[in-house]
Amino acid sequence: MTLSPYWLRDNCPCTDCRDLRTGQKLFQITDLPGDLTVRTSAEADGVLAVEWSDGHASRYPLDFLAGDQDGPGDDGRTEQGRPLWAAADFAAGLPAADWADYLADPAEILRAVRKFGFALLRDVPVVEQQVLTVARTFGYVRETNYGELFDVRVEADPNNLAFTNVAIAPHTDNPYRDPVPTLQLLHCLRNEAEGGDSGLVDGFRAAALLRTESPADFAVLTGTPVPFVFRDRGTELRADRPLIEVDALGRIREVRFNNRSIGTLRVSDPDAFYAAYRRFAEITLRPELQLEFRLGPGDCLIFDNTRLLHARTAFEQDGARHLQGCYADLDSLASTLAVLERRAAALDSIAELFAGEGAGEYLGEAVTMAEHMLQSGALAEAAGAPDHLVAAALLHDIGHFGGSGLELMAGQDNRHSHTGADWLARWFGPEVTEPIRLHVAAKRYLCAVEPSYLALLSEASVFTLQVQGGPMTDQEAAAFAALPGAADAVTVRRWDDEAKVADAATPGFDHFRPLLARLLG
Amino acid sequence: MTLSPYWLRDNCPCTDCRDLRTGQKLFQITDLPGDLTVRTSAEADGVLAVEWSDGHASRYPLDFLAGDQDGPGDDGRTEQGRPLWAAADFAAGLPAADWADYLADPAEILRAVRKFGFALLRDVPVVEQQVLTVARTFGYVRETNYGELFDVRVEADPNNLAFTNVAIAPHTDNPYRDPVPTLQLLHCLRNEAEGGDSGLVDGFRAAALLRTESPADFAVLTGTPVPFVFRDRGTELRADRPLIEVDALGRIREVRFNNRSIGTLRVSDPDAFYAAYRRFAEITLRPELQLEFRLGPGDCLIFDNTRLLHARTAFEQDGARHLQGCYADLDSLASTLAVLERRAAALDSIAELFAGEGAGEYLGEAVTMAEHMLQSGALAEAAGAPDHLVAAALLHDIGHFGGSGLELMAGQDNRHSHTGADWLARWFGPEVTEPIRLHVAAKRYLCAVEPSYLALLSEASVFTLQVQGGPMTDQEAAAFAALPGAADAVTVRRWDDEAKVADAATPGFDHFRPLLARLLG
Repeated sequence: MTLSPYWLRDNCPCTDCRDLRTGQKLFQITDLPGDLTVRTSAEADGVLAVEWSDGHASRYPLDFLAGDQDGPGDDGRTEQGRPLWAAADFAAGLPAADWADYLADPAEILRAVRKFGFALLRDVPVVEQQVLTVARTFGYVRETNYGELFDVRVEADPNNLAFTNVAIAPHTDNPYRDPVPTLQLLHCLRNEAEGGDSGLVDGFRAAALLRTESPADFAVLTGTPVPFVFRDRGTELRADRPLIEVDALGRIREVRFNNRSIGTLRVSDPDAFYAAYRRFAEITLRPELQLEFRLGPGDCLIFDNTRLLHARTAFEQDGARHLQGCYADLDSLASTLAVLERRAAALDSIAELFAGEGAGEYLGEAVTMAEHMLQSGALAEAAGAPDHLVAAALLHDIGHFGGSGLELMAGQDNRHSHTGADWLARWFGPEVTEPIRLHVAAKRYLCAVEPSYLALLSEASVFTLQVQGGPMTDQEAAAFAALPGAADAVTVRRWDDEAKVADAATPGFDHFRPLLARLLG
Repeated sequence: MTLSPYWLRDNCPCTDCRDLRTGQKLFQITDLPGDLTVRTSAEADGVLAVEWSDGHASRYPLDFLAGDQDGPGDDGRTEQGRPLWAAADFAAGLPAADWADYLADPAEILRAVRKFGFALLRDVPVVEQQVLTVARTFGYVRETNYGELFDVRVEADPNNLAFTNVAIAPHTDNPYRDPVPTLQLLHCLRNEAEGGDSGLVDGFRAAALLRTESPADFAVLTGTPVPFVFRDRGTELRADRPLIEVDALGRIREVRFNNRSIGTLRVSDPDAFYAAYRRFAEITLRPELQLEFRLGPGDCLIFDNTRLLHARTAFEQDGARHLQGCYADLDSLASTLAVLERRAAALDSIAELFAGEGAGEYLGEAVTMAEHMLQSGALAEAAGAPDHLVAAALLHDIGHFGGSGLELMAGQDNRHSHTGADWLARWFGPEVTEPIRLHVAAKRYLCAVEPSYLALLSEASVFTLQVQGGPMTDQEAAAFAALPGAADAVTVRRWDDEAKVADAATPGFDHFRPLLARLLG
């Protein structure tokens, strides 16, 4: 494979180059010499080792290097990899969940919003302001001139058509804002009116149809910044953005479509623009694209305001209809989903370690590594320890394992307590990781301060004590005792030492999974 | 001039087509017939009158039609029309104001942020959370994973380099968010550290230099979505956006530049990307672009995070340095500024009407229109009336004037009370506009309910009473009395009737300007 030297160096995964926890780089691209070259490179054990002309050394997993070099980046915000839908695609039902189920596991609904651009929550408490609570389950409320929360009902002196009872054609909200709010939530408190149904249209689908049916019109719309304007007594907003925005690779990324707020466009060929604009508007009205449904009390619709157009049928003047809405942003929703998925994957990875490598011999003890850790966890649980100590006891030796990226972090040393703590710190807080980090030191500490302790250790543990540095000096012991987590580490250590009973009956890893999930949450 | 029929019709300013207050259109582009043509058109008195093939009639001020057809739209967010700066441009000082002066008139500072991308407030109270108060003077705080507010100081367990004491090269914040926060505020509470100075670089200038010096590199950077990533325990953000974003017309619109958070880029030609990236990074480090200054306690820097890069020098580990920051958005800042400018312009327009047309004859009375209205206002003031009634008395006949767009709204009718109230409603609330709207009706009402009232009226007013519909019937009078603002309208009416004294000494318009400004605020 041909590798670009600067690309390779910029992706060096070593801890001098990169903060493992945040993925942030610790150097500037301009810190690299202008004449950087590879001095030597060698592949072994699935790793490419590189020595650089400036003396730096890097180690790359070959799996990483084999990643698709040509695949364009995808942050899940363009048309790429997302099904563009028509109404019939939801003939079997909308992506929906009950509020209680959503709270127990939000991932499926958040995934639907990413995938289809919307999802529906049902049985959301019919309480004013609840829509803000819904938004805060995955992100942050975006306040606008309409407030943190807006009431959608007939108002005496409306500053927006939304607050009347007339029909509203498919549109996106706040096109005159930049940044536009990327998510909208609408929570139905009452809907007793004749009419007042809701509609959604996949704006990406409509834009893709225009591209297929009339590429020239698509080019006009993606190439013309349109002034969107809104003003009232306290507001005067304007954003010049195209009706259809494509990214640098030509992928549809954003649709802004709101007849009402298009201001006066000054272009050299208005006929071409208006022809394209009308054609696109007609596509958005095609019956097969209109997904129509009725929001009832307790329904809360979450939708992507950069992709979907939403609409409302007219309703009778006196019919009681009251929605509360708010805006939020897709980036935080995606982050929340990614963290949920990462946590689920983390538990899966840990479970695999217990099932796979964990079945291996444990440094000459009479138990496997998995048995040892499960016994530790069970001892902690039996002692009535708080969740974080049960977890620390359960996971304390995970740094011995080689899988799931651990090998890379382990590097050349055998400081398994640190390796494990660092790996776990991606998901767990210091209340879990610091006792693990210190559990080897705790052995050296106890040897120093408790004369009787050494006798409790297994033969193998006595052996490794020497490799690990032997009993602490008085000064070392005092310094250790002052560390945060030291007392917890000593507690974990005692379970560790006891957890070496051959053939003891212990619960399996799945027993501990809910406890670990709580600590991740 | 050649006019596109759909463009022309889409811009019809009549009240059937457009909500005057919000500028929102009241029809859909698809509501227009597919074969729309102009049936007849005629120019007269600076207006083009058009009769359409579907029977609609439109009237366009020729001034509006003569507007630049070819000028691309500009929402003030691209490089267009904004000075791209180097450090020497601020040799005479930064755009700055004291907090108290800013609060009295924020326009100049907000304009500086729009123009240069930043401004500095001084003597801002050195109080925790004050930065949120600053943001709320012009917009809304954007909450992120760093909180609503973030503390920039050395932290024990930092999740971001910002919270350490190391130097940070010029960068933009939160590039892994989409939408990225478009504004950042940094409020200095303490800065006693050696080092810890602040730097700003005009990223648009740097991008424009790259475009000049190496167009191919500029094309690579604008054409390559780059994955920006950030993760910590509760966050996993990713946005794929170019380092330099241009709009559909090729204008630089946004710079995202943050070495630390660029993830693994998968492109077919990484060498080309890295060469362009390094060249751009080197430009951002050129000494002549670095605007350096030191924030002291009470300083609050406001800057455009889509245009400026910000930097920090290293500082001593133990030096006390504490900033509080938050994010906000440019759209609301621009809106706040536009409203301030509109209000100032409104007062200027009204002042001009009093000075110009106001000097004209007032329907056969012994006073000019301006004298009449100033007398009304003075009578209200002398009576100790609240501000809104003084304003209503002062402005009640403004609908008689033809200037400042009033002629368009006047149309063919002579309902000057409505015309004036509608025009004023752009800036004033109903407490001012409704008494004005009803002041003609109030005359007809008083004629109906107060037998002695008619005798108080001037000859001209008796004459116009007939044109206006004569005294109200009992039914009309009862309906009128029930209207909001009716009582205030009657009060204003009495001052109106009295305010016809030739050569009375009255204060000039400027006397009332502060009162009007308060009502606009």
